Amino acid sequence: MGGPGKAKRGIPPKSDFNSWYPSIVEIAELVDKRYPIKGMDVWMPYGLLSMNLIDQLARREMSRTDHSEFSFPLLVPEELLDKENMLVSRLKAARDAGIDPSEMRDEEEPSGFKKEVYWVTHGGENKLEVPMFLRPTSETPMYTMFSLWVRSHADLPLKTFQIVNTFRYETKQTRSFIRVREIHFFEAHTVHRDQQGADDQIEEDAEMVRRILHDLCLPSIVSKRPVWDTFPGAWYTKAADVVMPNGRTLQVATYHHYRDQWAEAFDLSYEDSDGSSKMCHQTTFGMSERLLGAVVGMHGDDNGLIMPPSVAPYQVILMPIAAHSDDRVSLTVEQISTQLTSAGIRTKIDDRDVRPGVKHYDWEIRGAPIRVEVGPRDISSGKCVVSLRTGGKSEESIEGISETIAKLLDSVSETLRKRAQELNKSLVKPLPVDPSDGRAISSDEIEDGVVYELAFDGNDSDAESLEKLTGLTLLGECDTPLPHEAPCAISGKLTTKRNHVARMY
Amino acid sequence: MGGPGKAKRGIPPKSDFNSWYPSIVEIAELVDKRYPIKGMDVWMPYGLLSMNLIDQLARREMSRTDHSEFSFPLLVPEELLDKENMLVSRLKAARDAGIDPSEMRDEEEPSGFKKEVYWVTHGGENKLEVPMFLRPTSETPMYTMFSLWVRSHADLPLKTFQIVNTFRYETKQTRSFIRVREIHFFEAHTVHRDQQGADDQIEEDAEMVRRILHDLCLPSIVSKRPVWDTFPGAWYTKAADVVMPNGRTLQVATYHHYRDQWAEAFDLSYEDSDGSSKMCHQTTFGMSERLLGAVVGMHGDDNGLIMPPSVAPYQVILMPIAAHSDDRVSLTVEQISTQLTSAGIRTKIDDRDVRPGVKHYDWEIRGAPIRVEVGPRDISSGKCVVSLRTGGKSEESIEGISETIAKLLDSVSETLRKRAQELNKSLVKPLPVDPSDGRAISSDEIEDGVVYELAFDGNDSDAESLEKLTGLTLLGECDTPLPHEAPCAISGKLTTKRNHVARMY
Repeated sequence: MGGPGKAKRGIPPKSDFNSWYPSIVEIAELVDKRYPIKGMDVWMPYGLLSMNLIDQLARREMSRTDHSEFSFPLLVPEELLDKENMLVSRLKAARDAGIDPSEMRDEEEPSGFKKEVYWVTHGGENKLEVPMFLRPTSETPMYTMFSLWVRSHADLPLKTFQIVNTFRYETKQTRSFIRVREIHFFEAHTVHRDQQGADDQIEEDAEMVRRILHDLCLPSIVSKRPVWDTFPGAWYTKAADVVMPNGRTLQVATYHHYRDQWAEAFDLSYEDSDGSSKMCHQTTFGMSERLLGAVVGMHGDDNGLIMPPSVAPYQVILMPIAAHSDDRVSLTVEQISTQLTSAGIRTKIDDRDVRPGVKHYDWEIRGAPIRVEVGPRDISSGKCVVSLRTGGKSEESIEGISETIAKLLDSVSETLRKRAQELNKSLVKPLPVDPSDGRAISSDEIEDGVVYELAFDGNDSDAESLEKLTGLTLLGECDTPLPHEAPCAISGKLTTKRNHVARMY
Repeated sequence: MGGPGKAKRGIPPKSDFNSWYPSIVEIAELVDKRYPIKGMDVWMPYGLLSMNLIDQLARREMSRTDHSEFSFPLLVPEELLDKENMLVSRLKAARDAGIDPSEMRDEEEPSGFKKEVYWVTHGGENKLEVPMFLRPTSETPMYTMFSLWVRSHADLPLKTFQIVNTFRYETKQTRSFIRVREIHFFEAHTVHRDQQGADDQIEEDAEMVRRILHDLCLPSIVSKRPVWDTFPGAWYTKAADVVMPNGRTLQVATYHHYRDQWAEAFDLSYEDSDGSSKMCHQTTFGMSERLLGAVVGMHGDDNGLIMPPSVAPYQVILMPIAAHSDDRVSLTVEQISTQLTSAGIRTKIDDRDVRPGVKHYDWEIRGAPIRVEVGPRDISSGKCVVSLRTGGKSEESIEGISETIAKLLDSVSETLRKRAQELNKSLVKPLPVDPSDGRAISSDEIEDGVVYELAFDGNDSDAESLEKLTGLTLLGECDTPLPHEAPCAISGKLTTKRNHVARMY
């Protein structure tokens, strides 16, 4: 534990992704799945270090954009869920009836939220007067407090975030990081004076997602989700999906524009500068441990993980060679370690008493970006041997080693980005259409493990036809339009709206 | 929010500690207590920053002593609690009967643990097959996994920790940080080959507590708890108590030596180098957000908090004076900020458009250790005005400001330590005894708000007499013995065992 134990053999080939993924998360000691509740894994030190680094990326973005960190209680009293259910029912009914939701009255029937949460019903041997649930996300607890905090326009914008665990009573098959019942979650919630304020926030969220995914070397497809896949209570939802090597898309970030829909439900109004009372506009931005799932799935290979330098617990592994036969070895390794560390490079000395081959093997599995060997002969020539996890091995001067390593770490990131882009390209294909009219053709042409791109500009029932025809799910309208107009694959209407259909996780 | 809002008046005098404490935690924006569940506060940004810094102190100690950080699931299946209850019942029965617990059989009656936990009984609308509880502490979930991880002596020692929230169904009156229902908790759990390994760990734990309390400028009393106040399943428990200004003691750290008692319950054995199978020995070390409660309670004054520099979210507040009338002001403030920040000093520029008096007032309430004013006249003379939250104001050269501030921060810490020591001294008094025989005398002499020190070397029934006589609780045998033998205040037996009785939080 802590340091790597004896590496376990038996990683399935990555081409068999559905076997490779669940094996590697345990073999690389990211998590232990043997905890006696399904879908709740134990975070092992190596996995937790990486997740903490992902959290730091999120904190960096939040600090850059003036969000403040809070921490809200895990338990939520039942009545807050009722408020949310009212809101959702009202919006849904309004949408179905095609009328303005503000004219609707509260519904009596709560919608399906209660099906997804864990319920705390007893404290000790006492039945609780008010049942409480474990937060699945924190709109209801947070907005209850926001309504106490926001009084006037001077209190706005209010930009908050928290990094906490959330809970879902998951009935589908669980998968480490991807579909779990206790979720390491990041959520930002903001409150604005008007729709423009919230619009701008959505832009800022998009920028933050771009920067974080860049750091993780992950390409993504950003789409505005179809209405029926919009977050409850939201005006619209945007999401970033990463195409995993098996062609399934993994939603890794979402951001929601609530307009003033939630504000009504939680009485979130403010006094404007002219003395009038106005409803706030709100947004949410969420990410989770799925980011780590995407990193694992995208970059790893037959030999194990490949950690992007931004979130590798150790960016460099230093391996003393034949240290027992030459005192200079340990000394030099220590010196290199000090230099790298003070240059801000996360470094670990592996001085276990095992053969170098074992160390290489262990750190290959764990995906350390760079391994550096230092032996007596190297020291005599002022060199060390540097191996990149993405391939390649070279002799480098010990003099100026920090600068050399910093450049090599960048090159590892670049290689990962390029590989991921190529993989992405190979997995996203144009939807087969009839060349005569550009309409989608029969589902026999649909391959397994492919994300299909298409021109689409149809209504809900067109979308339903598309999903039926392909057996896939519509991701929604992509942020990047088509370069030229093309006929919608269902309605035939000319459009530049790019869409994707895929099998989603 | 985020930065300080408009400061609220109305801090009760600190001499009225029981009113001062609950007010200041909200006025200084550490927490908001208006969340609709009692004993579950919202952590506000300023409070959370300080708590995170306390966590970092704990992480520093853990890293120094080779503990690895894990994160275990929050939910625990009921059957694990049953295992624990069996253990506790067996030990208790053995103690009551004065026999060796290893000879006992499992009891049928579970003890009182179930009364203290929150129970999750439903997932969505389904009753769970196995009820689960929210961890009150993590012995049971962790030891379940440890028994999978520990196979041979080569896996030992196993030194783990986690920083998580825990839950107690608290029926007593709640108080921010001191007695809450969702507890920000730190716990280390270790596994050793033998009792000696666990003994050494307990010594290491004591050292860590000493270093952390030194950083927080908190004196403490370290005692071995009486048998009836020992943690369930422990061989013995040691605890550090801080004497709060109202004379009540606050337990801020505990460490438990389990010997092999838990190992039996969780089948935690290993193969030793000679091939024999042996039971592991274990320890636990716990601290919580109570550390922040102790910091708040000990150091604050009539004007607000005083944060020890080690955990002050901002160690220095920079205040530009008349910045609108002289461009050099903002520039100089920025330069000073950069210098301080790169010297590792946490610095905040307060450039709000309010009078300097308001800023002073706000940061006084929040207890920032140092405030620095920079105005046009100061810049001309190359100086700035430095005020310490512990008192005193001086002109200092802008040149070399980082070194000056670093020294002043140390002096603030020293002042806080000295004041806390003095307060401690004034609150701990010798127990009134009959001068003729050294026996405790009637409770009429017992003052409210005092911790009494005494020589004590008695059995359980002597302790009971002592508690009855004083109306106070026995903390246990203090780590520092008396300098000379004195008669036990109950039994009259000569002893150097120092003990304390107090009203505990």
